[in-house]
Amino acid sequence: MKKVAIIMGSDSDLPVVQKAADQLKELDIPYEMHIYSAHRTPDEARDFARAARGKGFGVIIAAAGMAAHLAGALAANTTLPVIGIPCASGGLGGMDALLSTVQMPPGIPVATVAVGGAKNAALLAAQILALSEPDLIQKLDGKRASDADAVRAKDAKLNER
Amino acid sequence: MKKVAIIMGSDSDLPVVQKAADQLKELDIPYEMHIYSAHRTPDEARDFARAARGKGFGVIIAAAGMAAHLAGALAANTTLPVIGIPCASGGLGGMDALLSTVQMPPGIPVATVAVGGAKNAALLAAQILALSEPDLIQKLDGKRASDADAVRAKDAKLNER
Amino acid sequence: MKKVAIIMGSDSDLPVVQKAADQLKELDIPYEMHIYSAHRTPDEARDFARAARGKGFGVIIAAAGMAAHLAGALAANTTLPVIGIPCASGGLGGMDALLSTVQMPPGIPVATVAVGGAKNAALLAAQILALSEPDLIQKLDGKRASDADAVRAKDAKLNER
Amino acid sequence: MKKVAIIMGSDSDLPVVQKAADQLKELDIPYEMHIYSAHRTPDEARDFARAARGKGFGVIIAAAGMAAHLAGALAANTTLPVIGIPCASGGLGGMDALLSTVQMPPGIPVATVAVGGAKNAALLAAQILALSEPDLIQKLDGKRASDADAVRAKDAKLNER
Amino acid sequence: MKKVAIIMGSDSDLPVVQKAADQLKELDIPYEMHIYSAHRTPDEARDFARAARGKGFGVIIAAAGMAAHLAGALAANTTLPVIGIPCASGGLGGMDALLSTVQMPPGIPVATVAVGGAKNAALLAAQILALSEPDLIQKLDGKRASDADAVRAKDAKLNER
Amino acid sequence: MKKVAIIMGSDSDLPVVQKAADQLKELDIPYEMHIYSAHRTPDEARDFARAARGKGFGVIIAAAGMAAHLAGALAANTTLPVIGIPCASGGLGGMDALLSTVQMPPGIPVATVAVGGAKNAALLAAQILALSEPDLIQKLDGKRASDADAVRAKDAKLNER
Amino acid sequence: MKKVAIIMGSDSDLPVVQKAADQLKELDIPYEMHIYSAHRTPDEARDFARAARGKGFGVIIAAAGMAAHLAGALAANTTLPVIGIPCASGGLGGMDALLSTVQMPPGIPVATVAVGGAKNAALLAAQILALSEPDLIQKLDGKRASDADAVRAKDAKLNER
Amino acid sequence: MKKVAIIMGSDSDLPVVQKAADQLKELDIPYEMHIYSAHRTPDEARDFARAARGKGFGVIIAAAGMAAHLAGALAANTTLPVIGIPCASGGLGGMDALLSTVQMPPGIPVATVAVGGAKNAALLAAQILALSEPDLIQKLDGKRASDADAVRAKDAKLNER
Repeated sequence: MKKVAIIMGSDSDLPVVQKAADQLKELDIPYEMHIYSAHRTPDEARDFARAARGKGFGVIIAAAGMAAHLAGALAANTTLPVIGIPCASGGLGGMDALLSTVQMPPGIPVATVAVGGAKNAALLAAQILALSEPDLIQKLDGKRASDADAVRAKDAKLNER
Repeated sequence: MKKVAIIMGSDSDLPVVQKAADQLKELDIPYEMHIYSAHRTPDEARDFARAARGKGFGVIIAAAGMAAHLAGALAANTTLPVIGIPCASGGLGGMDALLSTVQMPPGIPVATVAVGGAKNAALLAAQILALSEPDLIQKLDGKRASDADAVRAKDAKLNER
Repeated sequence: MKKVAIIMGSDSDLPVVQKAADQLKELDIPYEMHIYSAHRTPDEARDFARAARGKGFGVIIAAAGMAAHLAGALAANTTLPVIGIPCASGGLGGMDALLSTVQMPPGIPVATVAVGGAKNAALLAAQILALSEPDLIQKLDGKRASDADAVRAKDAKLNER
Repeated sequence: MKKVAIIMGSDSDLPVVQKAADQLKELDIPYEMHIYSAHRTPDEARDFARAARGKGFGVIIAAAGMAAHLAGALAANTTLPVIGIPCASGGLGGMDALLSTVQMPPGIPVATVAVGGAKNAALLAAQILALSEPDLIQKLDGKRASDADAVRAKDAKLNER
Repeated sequence: MKKVAIIMGSDSDLPVVQKAADQLKELDIPYEMHIYSAHRTPDEARDFARAARGKGFGVIIAAAGMAAHLAGALAANTTLPVIGIPCASGGLGGMDALLSTVQMPPGIPVATVAVGGAKNAALLAAQILALSEPDLIQKLDGKRASDADAVRAKDAKLNER
Repeated sequence: MKKVAIIMGSDSDLPVVQKAADQLKELDIPYEMHIYSAHRTPDEARDFARAARGKGFGVIIAAAGMAAHLAGALAANTTLPVIGIPCASGGLGGMDALLSTVQMPPGIPVATVAVGGAKNAALLAAQILALSEPDLIQKLDGKRASDADAVRAKDAKLNER
Repeated sequence: MKKVAIIMGSDSDLPVVQKAADQLKELDIPYEMHIYSAHRTPDEARDFARAARGKGFGVIIAAAGMAAHLAGALAANTTLPVIGIPCASGGLGGMDALLSTVQMPPGIPVATVAVGGAKNAALLAAQILALSEPDLIQKLDGKRASDADAVRAKDAKLNER
Repeated sequence: MKKVAIIMGSDSDLPVVQKAADQLKELDIPYEMHIYSAHRTPDEARDFARAARGKGFGVIIAAAGMAAHLAGALAANTTLPVIGIPCASGGLGGMDALLSTVQMPPGIPVATVAVGGAKNAALLAAQILALSEPDLIQKLDGKRASDADAVRAKDAKLNER
């Protein structure tokens, strides 16, 4: 199976990003995590993006806050799908990171998830990889079913009161 | 090759959405376009999403405005990757559609592109399909190269003045 | 008397939603509470909405956060009045849930109350039911009068200082 | 059948509000339209709201822009359901009217629809009245069905191309 | 000297509003404080506004949160100057109260100060009253001078470090 | 009677500001208009503010757009009441000018009206001056009455249809 | 004198950017204009930034819209001062470009001017270069003086009416 | 070497501003800190700005919150480069200070950094001074290199786990 790369712009994003890693692990999807900053280590970010397909990666997840350029900077250097997680920091509630990540100009898409949406980033990566991994489709469908069961159980419990 | 579905919530979104279709056509990616409303024809939307993988679709693109639920409603009924295009309408500049599309709760991701970002939605779909279509990688890399050449040509022309 | 349904998208919305239940109880209006997710259990949400009128419900209250599709998803499947409560979560202060709930496209209205406005959702449901329940009009008028008295008492107390 | 009142704060809101009147007429729901300003003719607004139930009104629709107090001012003087239509004017795209209408404090609810959502205000009024008007339920269900058919027809036409 | 009225929509606004009272007291300006709700006790609010000039008030300060209609509701019933203090509550940081207070339609002005700006509301009231109270001009000029001295002292202290 | 100063930061604000002048003229309130820029002619702005009370001015109205510092810069140099008109320009709809005008720090109030609210700025100035001009109270009350009559006439005309 | 580089992300930004060029020309400051896209020609952007100081540039101005990464991408590759011009496009009024440009993380500053503020970008560049160019100080002071004179002339003309 | 002035509008901004001072100290750049308020001590602010170049300052950093006029007020009185730090306070997350600082009208630029971006303000000042201080270029390049090394070290440590 192709691997997923989880790139964060700063180790301060790790608590958010860890949820993506946990979700991938739960689905047995191989992944690597790296700290590459679009602004402080731009060459590492670029080189990673350029080499990623060749190294067996299928999807790149990028998490960053403020003027969050990381996902776009990676996307500019690969035609692999790049998923952006805007991270909230400071008083603007993540609106800065959201707009910096999602409002990409024509030609270079970034698949943006919710502010802090690390779990969904991992699930989206899984859904992408599942196109050529029938086993993964089953796992994802199973997870959907168990998520639905959990909602149903909570509803049932609420009504036992 | 797997097909791409382009779903819009209303025919008023067609001028935006057409750019996605044009981009897919340019890349020789098979696609179908449909008008399914999350609110006016919810069953059609649901049934399409549920059957999409079985009918040979690999990616679903969904475009909607205002309280744009379409992408999320489709995503709730498939584990195919769903790409959301928020469409601007009215005075809020598309902020309503953007937040309604991107802020999905954990479990059901939508890969959101920029407000009105139909071309990028198509390119993202292509990048996803390219994971198992080497020819498409070449086309996408070629497009990146020609886009870059176009920028270089414009820069050269600017400096001839 | 017709019943009120209080639907929440997640049990994390229960602390907000409980205030709606408490208000209905105070007015002796029968209600049921359920957890149906527009995205995780879309069929339960749809089936409930479709059957609600037949089961004796007169109004549906729906509470959800982030890309809050629940009220709209229920409204798409019933012509009962649906009241939406946008729930704040994360850094955007509920603006995402508000716009996702209120900006419904023509054809499918959602009666939206303030962010976190569960008490008002219950009162609005009561005002709707009161159209055919004269006793309820009296209760609501009485509550308005006692609310006004409470304000007057606070003003008097403030001026005793 | 109970009547619907459509109140606007200024005749400049008439082009928006007319869509509500047209929708009510289409559904054979009796209505009256008035211009009562929360700020310029506050007594007329108050007196109307206080007398509305006695005069046979079942729902009040109120449309206003900017610091849109009209719906709240009416709601403060009646326990009839009040539906607020925020009207866009000036550069803020209706955000001012939306927040002024929807963010009502506990005790006095306003059922808010989308910015400029006059048609949905009328449909919401109809859905409320339909609770005691079985004929209206049929009409509303019929309208939903024909709206859905219209979407299906547009989809079919799109795919004939 | 004419009196200042400080009106708040709810006793929950008292901690903010107290700063206005304290500032008026410091300037020896007579004032009264009342809790009148635009929505829960609209008649009290109206009656107060209508009678205020006759009772010797020169300025009305009104503080409210959320869909803050209080200042506008008072202003609609008097031609005394009305100063509005938007109060923050909930997740929107006071933006709802600010727009509800400041965006008044032509004809009925509200002199709006910053979110939570109770001290400035009192100073503005004082500046208005000072037009016919030479002693008050001296006090206000004196306060400006002492405020400036305080800044200078802090600067001096900072540079002693 | 004391005079009103209408200061604008740029002659591009004249179309907005003219409505304030027209309103003052209608009320026979003497006024002067000046173009003083907080940034381009800061000394003129300061000197005017410092001398204004001595020259017989009772209120200063200041209109500016973008980072609208003019009202605050004048207010910093006088204890006369200063009314700020935020002017919309560019894509932010006047939100920049509104926040720059209204969010004054403690000590230096600016009485802010709506974005583009020049007429209300004039009326607020008149209401302030009327505290010591009984004739002006009558005029303002008369204007309120005729405004109300105009609304009533429009309502009557609407219902003649 | 050191040169100024004016970089734009797309030739669609040229109408905005031209005002920067015109201002530099007026001040006799040598400049070059280039179209380098942070996303479409990232290597050109990076290489230019890295070589800029060696080629005699003293300041870089970068203009871009949407998720405007260009200024940040250049700033990441040089310790020359980089000035960012956020360009408005689409419905968000330039708020996306503003936040993407100004909210840079610690370590890599971008000197951001107003949305569309190309003239000020040029003046800021000139003020920076003037630190070691006494002639330029004189020109800038002269321009300030003539700008002030222009305001004074407009004020005089206004008062001749 | 020319000095840097760090001006804050209030001593409450000191915790933010201290990071700018620390960064300058680390780079051995001489600086002075002052508390000058655009509104409470406008003359001190103006006089400082006018005399700053003559006293050996090369750059002015100004930090303020709310309707943050300080940077603009200083910039209006000098042609030295002025860097503005918007400071967050209250519920608007610094959006008020950001727009008040960055949206300067043509003619008077302010080089704005992120909300609370004191460290970057210092680095930007250093980059400006470095144009005529080769030693400082080396320090800044060295800092960039060590920042990059720190990111690399964190990435390495993350992958040792």
